[in-house]
Amino acid sequence: MKLYDSAISGNSYKIRLVLAQLGIPCTIVPVDILHGETRTPEFLRLNPNGRAPVLEDGDFVLAESNAMLIYLARGSRLVPEDRRRFALTLQWMFFEQYSHEPYIATSRFLLQHQPDSAERAAKLAVRREGGWAALRVMEGHLARRDFFVDGYTIADIALFAYTHVAREGGFPLGDFPAIRAWIARVQTEPGFIPMT
Amino acid sequence: MKLYDSAISGNSYKIRLVLAQLGIPCTIVPVDILHGETRTPEFLRLNPNGRAPVLEDGDFVLAESNAMLIYLARGSRLVPEDRRRFALTLQWMFFEQYSHEPYIATSRFLLQHQPDSAERAAKLAVRREGGWAALRVMEGHLARRDFFVDGYTIADIALFAYTHVAREGGFPLGDFPAIRAWIARVQTEPGFIPMT
Repeated sequence: MKLYDSAISGNSYKIRLVLAQLGIPCTIVPVDILHGETRTPEFLRLNPNGRAPVLEDGDFVLAESNAMLIYLARGSRLVPEDRRRFALTLQWMFFEQYSHEPYIATSRFLLQHQPDSAERAAKLAVRREGGWAALRVMEGHLARRDFFVDGYTIADIALFAYTHVAREGGFPLGDFPAIRAWIARVQTEPGFIPMT
Repeated sequence: MKLYDSAISGNSYKIRLVLAQLGIPCTIVPVDILHGETRTPEFLRLNPNGRAPVLEDGDFVLAESNAMLIYLARGSRLVPEDRRRFALTLQWMFFEQYSHEPYIATSRFLLQHQPDSAERAAKLAVRREGGWAALRVMEGHLARRDFFVDGYTIADIALFAYTHVAREGGFPLGDFPAIRAWIARVQTEPGFIPMT
């Protein structure tokens, strides 16, 4: 198995984390998204949507980090078998990609990898409200639960990736004690590896 | 089963379509998103993220349209059992929510439900490139296949919802013959119902 992996991408980190926690051997192929390596003709043949990570398993190619989490972890302790819990796991993963990542991860990318400018400030400004809203939804949910579904699942992995570095996107977690406690719990799960 | 449903939302339509195609009885509870009905205290107790649709199955509550598609259709002809095809189905559903819906559905909402203004024009402008990019990815894929995975699946339902009304978001499909042929195929699937 091969993972086309961006070291700076939380979406890539999700996959490295699940591989580590399930002990799945995989060759890491570094892709430099800052230098256009996901937009080369070769990479676009792999993923026409031009994004990392991409997983290659023999002749099978899969894009979308959260689809990879399901592919790799289905049948393991990290994916509930029960129909309702499985659906809730997916619910939180779709929440992550729609209501969280476009605000928090994108802000982090702008702050960490683009020079300060009026254009960058404008892009950051329109992402503030959505980011805080996502964190408030998470805080409310985690105030009454240890993990997003029952026990640690790939929903936690999906949400952990960019939440634990939310401060780097301008979203410090000072007002979110339940999220901070959950981050600490995730970090003690067996096989946990840090992002860098 | 109860579906909290917005008549103008393609995400809600996905669920009405899968319910019709699988013959699942369900009570439709109309929710008026234009008048803040997804932001009332009662609705936020149902879905703290404040979005429709929401599915209620007895005491089980599920948000996120694509998670609902899996919940409702798992085990039916609309969801591949095979591990790889299942993962590809999810891949296209995450593509829909991340790379398609925020551009095409949001543009449609702005054009159909917000008055013309400089602010609206600016919001539409930043959504053009992503919308066309998503359509190009779909066109390239469908040029060699009848459906997104093998045979008609919930990935087609997820992508059909806003693609077949892309013109209402300012994305006419004149240059996308493979997408247009796919739309016509979806519309002849057993149990198909139109959006309105």
